[in-house]
Amino acid sequence: MDSKLNELKHRLQEIADLGAASSILYWDMSTYMPPGGAASRGRQLGLLARLLHERFTDPAVGHLLDDLQAYGESLPYDSDDAALLRKTRRDYERQTRLPNEFVKALTEHTSAIYSLWEQARPANDFGMVRDALEKTLDYSRQYADFFPGYESIIDPLINDADYGMKATDVRAVFAQLREQLVPLVRAIAAQPPADESPVKQHYPEAGQRAFGETIIRAYGYDFTRGRQDKTAHPFATSFGHGDVRITTRFREDDLTDGLFSTLHESGHAMYEQGIAPELDATPLYGGTSAGVHESQSRLWENIVGRSRGFWEHWYPALQAAFPAQLGTVSLDAFYRAINMVMPSLIRTDADEVTYNLHVMLRFDLEMDMLEGRLAIKDLPEAWNARYTADMGVTPPNDKDGVLQDVHWYSGLIGGAFQGYTLGNILSAQFYERALAAHPEIPTEIAQGKFDTLRGWLTDNLYVHGSKYTAPELIARVTGGGLDVQPLVNYLRTKYGELYRLD
Amino acid sequence: MDSKLNELKHRLQEIADLGAASSILYWDMSTYMPPGGAASRGRQLGLLARLLHERFTDPAVGHLLDDLQAYGESLPYDSDDAALLRKTRRDYERQTRLPNEFVKALTEHTSAIYSLWEQARPANDFGMVRDALEKTLDYSRQYADFFPGYESIIDPLINDADYGMKATDVRAVFAQLREQLVPLVRAIAAQPPADESPVKQHYPEAGQRAFGETIIRAYGYDFTRGRQDKTAHPFATSFGHGDVRITTRFREDDLTDGLFSTLHESGHAMYEQGIAPELDATPLYGGTSAGVHESQSRLWENIVGRSRGFWEHWYPALQAAFPAQLGTVSLDAFYRAINMVMPSLIRTDADEVTYNLHVMLRFDLEMDMLEGRLAIKDLPEAWNARYTADMGVTPPNDKDGVLQDVHWYSGLIGGAFQGYTLGNILSAQFYERALAAHPEIPTEIAQGKFDTLRGWLTDNLYVHGSKYTAPELIARVTGGGLDVQPLVNYLRTKYGELYRLD
Repeated sequence: MDSKLNELKHRLQEIADLGAASSILYWDMSTYMPPGGAASRGRQLGLLARLLHERFTDPAVGHLLDDLQAYGESLPYDSDDAALLRKTRRDYERQTRLPNEFVKALTEHTSAIYSLWEQARPANDFGMVRDALEKTLDYSRQYADFFPGYESIIDPLINDADYGMKATDVRAVFAQLREQLVPLVRAIAAQPPADESPVKQHYPEAGQRAFGETIIRAYGYDFTRGRQDKTAHPFATSFGHGDVRITTRFREDDLTDGLFSTLHESGHAMYEQGIAPELDATPLYGGTSAGVHESQSRLWENIVGRSRGFWEHWYPALQAAFPAQLGTVSLDAFYRAINMVMPSLIRTDADEVTYNLHVMLRFDLEMDMLEGRLAIKDLPEAWNARYTADMGVTPPNDKDGVLQDVHWYSGLIGGAFQGYTLGNILSAQFYERALAAHPEIPTEIAQGKFDTLRGWLTDNLYVHGSKYTAPELIARVTGGGLDVQPLVNYLRTKYGELYRLD
Repeated sequence: MDSKLNELKHRLQEIADLGAASSILYWDMSTYMPPGGAASRGRQLGLLARLLHERFTDPAVGHLLDDLQAYGESLPYDSDDAALLRKTRRDYERQTRLPNEFVKALTEHTSAIYSLWEQARPANDFGMVRDALEKTLDYSRQYADFFPGYESIIDPLINDADYGMKATDVRAVFAQLREQLVPLVRAIAAQPPADESPVKQHYPEAGQRAFGETIIRAYGYDFTRGRQDKTAHPFATSFGHGDVRITTRFREDDLTDGLFSTLHESGHAMYEQGIAPELDATPLYGGTSAGVHESQSRLWENIVGRSRGFWEHWYPALQAAFPAQLGTVSLDAFYRAINMVMPSLIRTDADEVTYNLHVMLRFDLEMDMLEGRLAIKDLPEAWNARYTADMGVTPPNDKDGVLQDVHWYSGLIGGAFQGYTLGNILSAQFYERALAAHPEIPTEIAQGKFDTLRGWLTDNLYVHGSKYTAPELIARVTGGGLDVQPLVNYLRTKYGELYRLD
């Protein structure tokens, strides 16, 4: 068995290395590539995607998995090798459903629509992407149809990002959350609005960058195994254990955009940096699901980074970095400014309370499109109607409406958005468990110390990479499943105090 | 034939795309990669090198070439397709001589010795790389032996970079050049030395960078299809027609290092940017030989960038950028400072007159090693003795001696150095032809205009990519072969004036 396992591992390492090469090309495309590089970069990425898919779906991999099946089942469930064989089998089953030609065509389509969207968004012209988005919808349905027997057409797409979840599960937790969020949003709306002017002053980029990097260094993001660069749409990306990068952007008229994007991406990156090094270059290297990944970005961005205790420690340093802007602004005023709740147009700018409403409406629109109730040509109108209904604000244009998010213009329709709200729910569940184990964490945060929290997260979540599926991991850590109550409690307590509710 | 030609082109495009992916990973490794990325990057690059070699040496490629042989010969010699088939055949014959295992072992060895050298050079410890360099010498001989029937063991290595040249040719031109250079160096040494203190002041990096980029933009380097980043060892690299990048470094105590490195690399890059777009992603995309490539970097760096006319136009702008450093330095004093001739230890810092002596001694040492007259353990001593004999200066340590150049520590011994001097010779030959066609070029340069020169170089050299071999291209442009006389004339005239010789 040893030689077969070694052969499998060798093949998987090459596949991981090809995947890393592809991620490096994508990172470069998003940070430094000059405009002239776009056409050939799309082709290069398409080729790597195809090679990766060809190598992974090579029947020899299937034979090795077959030959190793009994061996894997004979190992302790928790052993790395058992988990490797389970995860590889799962990925193999999924990938072998997708024909090579489909993967190639989709990759090329994705590059093409992304380039269109990059022009269409600033031009505020949905018409520029409409035909391509029709194709995306068509590809999305084709994708689902490679997995016949689904309950909902979106299930195969969800399964890709959040393995173990189905539309019915997502809908159920979304409904529970919505039921408790909407009254909270209304109660807050009835109070005097917060004043966000302190964060809306002129903040030079260099100072923002230095401050943000000071924080994430304190969090424990390891710059010897990472770096931060600028991009239009912030993301974190891993090329392996030794190289996990984040990207950010800065707006000089808004302190929060760059700062909280940096904290957000550092959460994703610390998850990847914390995976056990012996899992490097295997299918177990990487966060286990979109939702669990997002739980870490939101935990470090919001639960930690927007907490009052956090700013008790860091606010003097921020004032020292921006004395003209914040020298006379009190900690309370600043804390209220960074936690202002206000129904708005843009998901990525949304506060913690209304954020999930942005996600839910996208999820519903995806279902409508996939199930044929909503045509692409009617999407902008449906989008705007839903914002009017849910948020009480109507997008004045498509740039700040249906064109705002990259997801539908850089991948499939379906599967990408639910992870954001699952992440918010999980962030509160995991943080609750961390506090149960270490009640001193809030005190430490207020002293600028994060080792206990990061250590607990590393030991309980990060180190495992993808050894456990998201449902398994959630059960190990919380003893149960998805539960909206910790998030609701957290939001009620925090915003109850901030907005003097009851 | 059309379908076979298309199939071949399709395969070659994939090979070009894999090559570009590999170059992007290398660029990233040299510019932005955090230290933690080193181990996996070596593995990723090794994998891509192997995939590239496997795909190119696939017997199917050989069959296609066989089937298309007669068709290629039936086409006009100058047609793109005829050239494509000739060049691909030549590359295929060479690559198929190299066993896959050799390529893989060499790639891994190269990563390993490069890492050692990165530590050994600052540590001034030749012992750290000695054993690995023995292996490199062994690999270099093995490489040559895959091409039996050579006249000199270095010929297969030269052929790789400067196709069509042999050791006997290199030796002949080197001897001719040396015979005329040595008296010139002696005559200059008998004159009062130039004063380089104007360029050895404190020059803040940002100002150096902005000035250099102004110049290369004026040269015609296209930043929409390229960019400049910082690295330890400057290079130019092409990922295809739309993305040709340069890297540079800056020393704040020396204006010339960053500035002339920028001009140098821009010459390489303008060559690549000027290749006909229809050759993109084929084996014809790329400069035709190391020597011809270097002729363009040296032409834009030295013949243009260190000329008096050039600075008549640009010196006021440089003074305005650095008023404290240069406000009171005359154009003449500055011109003399950037053209100071002085036998020295470091090749990359050498002036135009002594530079080729650095190259010649490396070439001779390579021959001595390959032919077994010089053991690796005796290399530092031989290096130092030769510097003492040729330059009158003895390296005080190996860091500024035998460890100074990356070449032997990142590739084979033999094949890399001769191109530098061939490039210098060719730069003067090509410039002479450009002047014959457009006598107004020097006047235009003195007005800050480069379009006529760049246009002529594009039409006569750049656009062809690798359609013609270097000997063919040289014959087309000059009507003859390599000729040291234009370089000697250029140096005698320029430095005769500068040092008031005769």
